[in-house]
Amino acid sequence: MYKNFLADIASYSTNQKSCQYKMDANENFTSVIAKDKLINRLLDMDINRYPEGSSVKLRKAVSKRENLKIENILMGSGSSEVIELLFKCIIGSGDRVLGFSPSFSMYNLYANIQGANYETLSLDSEMKMDMGLLNERCKELDPKLVIICNPNNPTGSWVERSEIVEFLDNNSNRFVLLDEAYVEFMGQSSSDLINDYENLFVAKTFSKAYGLAGVRLGYMLSSGYNIEQLNKIRPPYNINVFTQICGETILECQDEVSKNIVFIKEQREKLFNQMKDLGIKVFPSKSNFIYFYSTIDNLQDRLLEKGVLIRKYSDSSNGYFRVTVGSLQENQAFIKSFREVKEIEKS
Amino acid sequence: MYKNFLADIASYSTNQKSCQYKMDANENFTSVIAKDKLINRLLDMDINRYPEGSSVKLRKAVSKRENLKIENILMGSGSSEVIELLFKCIIGSGDRVLGFSPSFSMYNLYANIQGANYETLSLDSEMKMDMGLLNERCKELDPKLVIICNPNNPTGSWVERSEIVEFLDNNSNRFVLLDEAYVEFMGQSSSDLINDYENLFVAKTFSKAYGLAGVRLGYMLSSGYNIEQLNKIRPPYNINVFTQICGETILECQDEVSKNIVFIKEQREKLFNQMKDLGIKVFPSKSNFIYFYSTIDNLQDRLLEKGVLIRKYSDSSNGYFRVTVGSLQENQAFIKSFREVKEIEKS
Repeated sequence: MYKNFLADIASYSTNQKSCQYKMDANENFTSVIAKDKLINRLLDMDINRYPEGSSVKLRKAVSKRENLKIENILMGSGSSEVIELLFKCIIGSGDRVLGFSPSFSMYNLYANIQGANYETLSLDSEMKMDMGLLNERCKELDPKLVIICNPNNPTGSWVERSEIVEFLDNNSNRFVLLDEAYVEFMGQSSSDLINDYENLFVAKTFSKAYGLAGVRLGYMLSSGYNIEQLNKIRPPYNINVFTQICGETILECQDEVSKNIVFIKEQREKLFNQMKDLGIKVFPSKSNFIYFYSTIDNLQDRLLEKGVLIRKYSDSSNGYFRVTVGSLQENQAFIKSFREVKEIEKS
Repeated sequence: MYKNFLADIASYSTNQKSCQYKMDANENFTSVIAKDKLINRLLDMDINRYPEGSSVKLRKAVSKRENLKIENILMGSGSSEVIELLFKCIIGSGDRVLGFSPSFSMYNLYANIQGANYETLSLDSEMKMDMGLLNERCKELDPKLVIICNPNNPTGSWVERSEIVEFLDNNSNRFVLLDEAYVEFMGQSSSDLINDYENLFVAKTFSKAYGLAGVRLGYMLSSGYNIEQLNKIRPPYNINVFTQICGETILECQDEVSKNIVFIKEQREKLFNQMKDLGIKVFPSKSNFIYFYSTIDNLQDRLLEKGVLIRKYSDSSNGYFRVTVGSLQENQAFIKSFREVKEIEKS
């Protein structure tokens, strides 16, 4: 009596392996929030009362940051919630959704829950997203929704703003979701394009650059009309009191956030070069992680023995791994451990 | 390009009217959690890391409380999330879902999102749920899922365990959801029946008797197999670090929770009798609220002028209202204000 697609899937496995250096989940290595400010505000919480339903204070803070109106903003329990809200509003039985592969694994699931088909276009051999090919595939398949994760997870590859604009100009007859979960590590967001393209949705998160993965907070940006539609099916109190306070507080810590981003970008370049020097096939990244290819047997397990946890990709992506750019200590531990594993492999 | 049902609905309106006595949302009037314990634990949080994905500590605590296995438990962001997960797993285009009316308004929405039809059976004139009639309607309509909210929101009416058992015996060929959001104010839960009925799901919440409405925490109980299916589409990190800590902490405060429930039940009986004495048509309730009927014009607004906010039902339920059983002070304020409004009405 369950839907058919459930037979083919297992639960999303969140890696609970204990380790000294956690570099598998693209979290920020540090919490940049002003903890004293946060605790003071927590003491004032009324946790027996429902949270304010529309997160209005938080949306005001986001609207300043994004230079958009609060009518353009919908807060969610992670960007994953707002992305799924979009699917629920527009995707039904038999519809087509198109995205790149590999990319964030949840898009496929959200499509399946709504009875839709998730079609994919493979990245090229250098893990780049070919927007021209995407446009061709759109003509062929006529998907109702196209998803562009920029920069892409798990590969770190990216497309330029001009390519997004061109794609939007050619695809005004379908919805386009731009997932910018990692955009702060790339540079300029394209969120302002929602002012020009009524069919565009941009999803963002506080889990990465803002260091709030444990809190679950994200948001969707789109036209006032689109946000109103999503709001109709948003769970009435989806952002709890704690999460609202965390969001408001971190947006007052913009200097610390910016410094942390600069540091992670520097570390990423350093780590990339060190990995390259070790002979690893690494793919250029504008995110807080690096995707790479290695033929070393059981690489994940062998690094874990040394305390370093990275993400392994199986099935179609055998031999591919993703390592999060972490603290100085974490990055050094990864390089040291990798070198040791490689030495043994060679001998 | 949006799904059709969206055209007919407005956003769930969460009442943001400011008031002195908030008696509209069935919240607990007080926070019973040990706040010192909570704050100490919050200081230890790693909010930059994703929360533990399966809420295992919390599920262990719930399993003790429920005398069920942790495999029978799925935690959600409020019971609303776990209820919607059930819909997503089993309800598709054209399916039928059956529930009483009036009842919790979100069931209808969850059915519509999945493209299903939500059918209702009206409560009788005394707001009672007729389980015999429900059984008849099941034979007629053959719904895939039947929902029994017990005690029912917004009416406070209830069915006996024996009636649920009889219904389950006659309906093994469909899923049954028992929504026990308010069961602690009634008495015995029927959650243990999941051991005997593979098609039964029981939803519970921490928002009411446990006083954690601001936190958003609930859970689903069912067979290990059923929970495994729901888990496949559960958002990977749906319970944030704060919420997990709150849940763990409140389950250590069972004495305080129990005392608070006894108090609310006493207050409910007192309030019920006072309302009856005022000539209000009140319906017996085993919940933390009382449903009533009144012909006084603009009753909600006129009570609000005196600082008391209650819930008003419109459309098919014109003239019906729901008031939450609150603190001594809140209940007195409601009675006093109602009496004043009534005096003016008479004169």
